[in-house]
Amino acid sequence: MTAYKDLSKEELLELKSELEARFEEVKEKGLKLDMSRGKPAADQLNLSMDMMKVLAGDANLICEDGVDCRNYGNLDGIDEAKQLLADMMEVPKDNVIIFGNSSLNVMYDTVSRAMTHGIMGNTPWCKLDKVKFLCPVPGYDRHFAITEFFGIEMVNIPMTPTGPDMDLVEKLVSEDESVKGIWCVPKYSNPQGITYSDDTVYRFANLKPAAKDFRIFWDNAYCVHHLYEDKQDYLLEILMECKKAGNPDMVYKFSSTSKISFPGSGIAALAASEANLKDVRNMMKVQTIGHDKVNQLRHVRFFKNIHGIVEHMKKHADILRPKFEAVLDVLERELGGLEIGSWIAPHGGYFISFDAMEGCAKAIVAKAKEAGLVMTGAGATFPYGKDPHDSNIRIAPSYPTPEELSVAAEIFVLSVKLVSIDKLLGNL
Amino acid sequence: MTAYKDLSKEELLELKSELEARFEEVKEKGLKLDMSRGKPAADQLNLSMDMMKVLAGDANLICEDGVDCRNYGNLDGIDEAKQLLADMMEVPKDNVIIFGNSSLNVMYDTVSRAMTHGIMGNTPWCKLDKVKFLCPVPGYDRHFAITEFFGIEMVNIPMTPTGPDMDLVEKLVSEDESVKGIWCVPKYSNPQGITYSDDTVYRFANLKPAAKDFRIFWDNAYCVHHLYEDKQDYLLEILMECKKAGNPDMVYKFSSTSKISFPGSGIAALAASEANLKDVRNMMKVQTIGHDKVNQLRHVRFFKNIHGIVEHMKKHADILRPKFEAVLDVLERELGGLEIGSWIAPHGGYFISFDAMEGCAKAIVAKAKEAGLVMTGAGATFPYGKDPHDSNIRIAPSYPTPEELSVAAEIFVLSVKLVSIDKLLGNL
Repeated sequence: MTAYKDLSKEELLELKSELEARFEEVKEKGLKLDMSRGKPAADQLNLSMDMMKVLAGDANLICEDGVDCRNYGNLDGIDEAKQLLADMMEVPKDNVIIFGNSSLNVMYDTVSRAMTHGIMGNTPWCKLDKVKFLCPVPGYDRHFAITEFFGIEMVNIPMTPTGPDMDLVEKLVSEDESVKGIWCVPKYSNPQGITYSDDTVYRFANLKPAAKDFRIFWDNAYCVHHLYEDKQDYLLEILMECKKAGNPDMVYKFSSTSKISFPGSGIAALAASEANLKDVRNMMKVQTIGHDKVNQLRHVRFFKNIHGIVEHMKKHADILRPKFEAVLDVLERELGGLEIGSWIAPHGGYFISFDAMEGCAKAIVAKAKEAGLVMTGAGATFPYGKDPHDSNIRIAPSYPTPEELSVAAEIFVLSVKLVSIDKLLGNL
Repeated sequence: MTAYKDLSKEELLELKSELEARFEEVKEKGLKLDMSRGKPAADQLNLSMDMMKVLAGDANLICEDGVDCRNYGNLDGIDEAKQLLADMMEVPKDNVIIFGNSSLNVMYDTVSRAMTHGIMGNTPWCKLDKVKFLCPVPGYDRHFAITEFFGIEMVNIPMTPTGPDMDLVEKLVSEDESVKGIWCVPKYSNPQGITYSDDTVYRFANLKPAAKDFRIFWDNAYCVHHLYEDKQDYLLEILMECKKAGNPDMVYKFSSTSKISFPGSGIAALAASEANLKDVRNMMKVQTIGHDKVNQLRHVRFFKNIHGIVEHMKKHADILRPKFEAVLDVLERELGGLEIGSWIAPHGGYFISFDAMEGCAKAIVAKAKEAGLVMTGAGATFPYGKDPHDSNIRIAPSYPTPEELSVAAEIFVLSVKLVSIDKLLGNL
């Protein structure tokens, strides 16, 4: 394969007309394909259908400690659900609060409470002139939407193959008291599938923040979402590392069963130090009498324990792996060596991140749409929807079938090639 | 019966020693009784156990309109759940958003959003020097806890047999721009069981608020919670009345299935004008991808429709009615004519409200506790926990058995009598 940049103008023009003809053929098929959303497919959801049966034969819904799950009470969750999610999050049970169906909601509420009431006795953020969050990019659009909603200034931090650029993180966190948080998806990151290295986690735990109420928002959404049994990433447990570093209160760790059982009908959890949890409970007792304990019990009865979750996730992996591979195969075969884009083959998570040549992402997404393929909007992986290099595109292979994905990936690479040629020809 | 106030000092002292002897007898039994919390009893929860079965036989969980309840999507709820709760709330389906498990949480979030972002483009309340809420008293402690938490000044509004003192409400709402809201439990109110009269609702709908972002927080928690088939209260529907009055946006109406299916595992809803709902959706889309649709479907499949809810509530009433009557019988028999307390026999809801002589409530609750009976803390039914007359006591008869309630009520009336005598003797 010759890299496109080494082709002459004539060669590029010839290639272009060839690719355009192929593109027109595909377009005429009138396809409707969608690689935009990190949604599990129906066969993944089918894996959890027995969850609808586990409580059906029960005469009552009583916890091991006698709590009646059907009634009011237990603000921070039932014991066995705490144990299950604590094991999943690799923390002690006493460091866990169980919430409702959405960890995003827990993150929103955490920021919202910090705005109106402050964290552990510190000044409410709404009373401060400026509040900043560090945002490793590319990242998760819904994280950025929360901080944007609350008028928090977002600062881009480039991702590296081992996690966020820690030199920059350390500098900003230690020098700027207005830096109050950082959004992290530390394992199989959204969208790159990068897992933070031990050194990165260690450096996070050893941050010396200027702000006493600086918190790491550690969204471990994909903690058990491996694609391969033999190629798993391992992530150092941040709560313990923070404790060892003398920073026990510096991290909020979030997780949920959304992409384990049912998205929207799972259970979410926050893990943090006892001091943080006390602070959170003090406020959440005003907000609610408690979350859905029946659903907590349902999850415990279905998964039984962490081993049950691990085994369950292997079934998810068996469905997802061929989909990722279908896309990666096409990328490798069609774009390998062309030097018009790069990507990472992740070991888990829900996304493949593609970096096009600078200034090409929006045009590629638009081009793909012409042929009936919907991608995540270019820029969505950056704060304010602005990718400064207009380069990153998030590919979500979970929802379509492998067959659809092969076709979709073909459209995608065609679009990449065509736009890249235009870029090299100076037409963009 | 001779009123205590008409007894001589000697007669009071003689009565006191008699009652004290009886009180000691009860005390020696070492009872443990609780009339403090509005919790359904286990046999009420048993009524909904088939809810655990309704989805068990389903191969998938698809809505009437094809939505897969197991996956992400439908920010504001599934259609059939909207219809069910719209019928329960007596409003059109398009005026309803379905939330998670707790209407209290919806109210909290509504106040929280008003604080940080304002209502329909108005100034966020946190930017204002002063924000006030009107609080009909006695009322629901968890309402008052929310406004207290956000530093909102609470103004007591006396309840009358037809609802809040509307002369005062009209005056304060129309004259004071800092009055941004009022907490209402308009049907079978907590704790008095009063249902607002048509005239009260009409006057609410026709308020002329000084503040453009004044909202009535209409917590219709007990909309279908009748105790008697033949003695039901009827409440004018406020959304329609507001619309007719030219104030379509003035009310947020809240409800949930908490005391219909399972407290903590039900579904909650907000009903409001389209403009209000648009405003809410705009903010809630940042907070969550959506609430638990499987639980929404579960409720629809179990109740089927509003008639199903009505029939179900008759079964609740059959369990609750004897409990209310057990308490009311003792109150009537033991305190009738003594002029040391008054109460209302409610037609629905979860509470009986008792008004002792001024300055006696705290002492009565303390006295009852001596004999092993836990009551709701005196003052809890007022903002800041301060009953200016130290008179109101909330009785919650739902959780204990009728037999326990008879004993509990005996302890209660004994405590009332003893404290009242002390009051009349000038010992308090």
